[in-house]
Amino acid sequence: MALEAIEWLGNRLRILDQSKLPWEQSFIDLSDYRDVALAITEMKIRGAPVIGIAAAYGIALGAQDITTANKEEFLVKLEQIMQTFAATRPTAVNLFQAINRIKEAAIGDSIPEIKRRVIDEAKQIYQEEIEATRRLSQLGADLIEDGFTILTHCNAGPLATAGYGTALGVIKAAKEQGKRLSVIATETRPLLQGASLTVWELQQADISVTLITDSMAGYFMNQGKINCIIVGADRIAGNGDVANKIGTYTLAVLAKENNIPFYVAAPISTIDLSLSSGAKIPIEERNPEEVTHIHGVPIAPKGIKAANPAFDITPYNYISAIITEEGIIRGPYTEGLRVIVC
Amino acid sequence: MALEAIEWLGNRLRILDQSKLPWEQSFIDLSDYRDVALAITEMKIRGAPVIGIAAAYGIALGAQDITTANKEEFLVKLEQIMQTFAATRPTAVNLFQAINRIKEAAIGDSIPEIKRRVIDEAKQIYQEEIEATRRLSQLGADLIEDGFTILTHCNAGPLATAGYGTALGVIKAAKEQGKRLSVIATETRPLLQGASLTVWELQQADISVTLITDSMAGYFMNQGKINCIIVGADRIAGNGDVANKIGTYTLAVLAKENNIPFYVAAPISTIDLSLSSGAKIPIEERNPEEVTHIHGVPIAPKGIKAANPAFDITPYNYISAIITEEGIIRGPYTEGLRVIVC
Repeated sequence: MALEAIEWLGNRLRILDQSKLPWEQSFIDLSDYRDVALAITEMKIRGAPVIGIAAAYGIALGAQDITTANKEEFLVKLEQIMQTFAATRPTAVNLFQAINRIKEAAIGDSIPEIKRRVIDEAKQIYQEEIEATRRLSQLGADLIEDGFTILTHCNAGPLATAGYGTALGVIKAAKEQGKRLSVIATETRPLLQGASLTVWELQQADISVTLITDSMAGYFMNQGKINCIIVGADRIAGNGDVANKIGTYTLAVLAKENNIPFYVAAPISTIDLSLSSGAKIPIEERNPEEVTHIHGVPIAPKGIKAANPAFDITPYNYISAIITEEGIIRGPYTEGLRVIVC
Repeated sequence: MALEAIEWLGNRLRILDQSKLPWEQSFIDLSDYRDVALAITEMKIRGAPVIGIAAAYGIALGAQDITTANKEEFLVKLEQIMQTFAATRPTAVNLFQAINRIKEAAIGDSIPEIKRRVIDEAKQIYQEEIEATRRLSQLGADLIEDGFTILTHCNAGPLATAGYGTALGVIKAAKEQGKRLSVIATETRPLLQGASLTVWELQQADISVTLITDSMAGYFMNQGKINCIIVGADRIAGNGDVANKIGTYTLAVLAKENNIPFYVAAPISTIDLSLSSGAKIPIEERNPEEVTHIHGVPIAPKGIKAANPAFDITPYNYISAIITEEGIIRGPYTEGLRVIVC
């Protein structure tokens, strides 16, 4: 995978505009932290782990530009920058984990020292995520057998995660082990990350893929065509409830009904032990125009009301296993998740 | 509802091109039966009951144009016309029921008499469907309580059925009983009949409607926002298994998991007692471009394989009741369906 979702260039952040893929490979250099925050809100950068990395680098960028020589004033301004990022998207916890890490790293005797530590911490987050996805992909690959057809939803590949990918990372690692695989990818309305990103990443990885609408997944499960399902996650609560792209809950219910294993692949940065259950995870409600329009073209008559929850919660009891870089956790999750996070 | 999906004009059939709705109200006058068949295949006319009516009128149109004075030759040509319609779309049984009725009506001493009887039978089928949807809507309305939020999938309104509609007919009848209702309509990929037709018909009927993507239905069910689900049907097997628009099975599984009643509203012309189960219902596989493109715009990279089953089978055990013009049938369905059909 040659394309990097995000690249730190010292005085600016280069991002790949994922909203234009696969038609256009358009890189944007952002030197103002507010533009980084906007790119997250507008989903030019998307995918829980990459959102965290982008926010970390974005804060580093903002920190560099703070011109005061007064340390207290500097820290107040840094805090404001962090708040800007905290307000971009509410569901993926990696964002808040990254902000917290930057906040804790922002100490030092001098402003230059703090700036340097913030940048170092952002780089560290990036490196750790790359390593985490590589490890969890290797571990998860053991769940995939030769000849499997795997269903995945939305996009949890390198573009979403930096490095190797989570759900797609596991699939790619299984393929690298020599297993023959095919993938069924849901298009993932409203923003069609499955149709635009997942099938494209799998095509490049030379893995056979068939695109379906979200509504077809049940049909293929019921026909016995799916051996397992793997998705990523935006936030995992302490009890194992998983927030992920809208439609994930539906796939998990269908999987249970059809006795198909349902796996969640996510780095530890996605786990939020501060929440006892998924009911407490905030669900982002996005612009209804993402539903009433596709690529800017209206699909519904004028004046029609639409809802646009971007995520849903899959209760832990629908999840066969959670694949992390520290091991494959099976329910009951409360203890298993606590051990690997703490 | 002022717009007629289909109108017989003696020497031609006027259809409303549903593929252009709601943006354009384009009526097409078809005087060649082959054009009627093509309009069915291309889904300018769609919805199981209307497909049956269109085929009946289409055969009548073709019969009128047969110029031979030889009765045997006439019947051979009529049979060929019927075969053209039988080949248009495989899943909705109303098509085959209509063809069979026309075949049985095509008797008489003279060719003009046969032609007249064919036309009369087509008109009869049309009138019966109007009456059936009116009656089943009235009966079904009793299942809807004041304050209900009803989820529906695809389009089972007047455009799909002639007359009153099935799923939407029930909702409209409940509204006419003075009940306060709101509807959540799935967009229904790939062809978006929910986003283009259902929301539009409900808007015109002054019923509050919210559009969602197919992947959001589970979220709203799990949130306790849905009181019941009503869908139409393309074919109902003798055991109560239902073929309907792809995605229906998924909604039924979600409904069961969330203890939400799942109703199917369909005229008796949709019931096919010749099939003992849904496994025997042929599922139409349509052009994959309907998945890879939306309104002609590509949503996936070039060369991506897509699947496009247009229907799925919902097993009878997920269905709370089947609403017909002869009554509301509850499981076990085998006996109940036999009684109302025979």
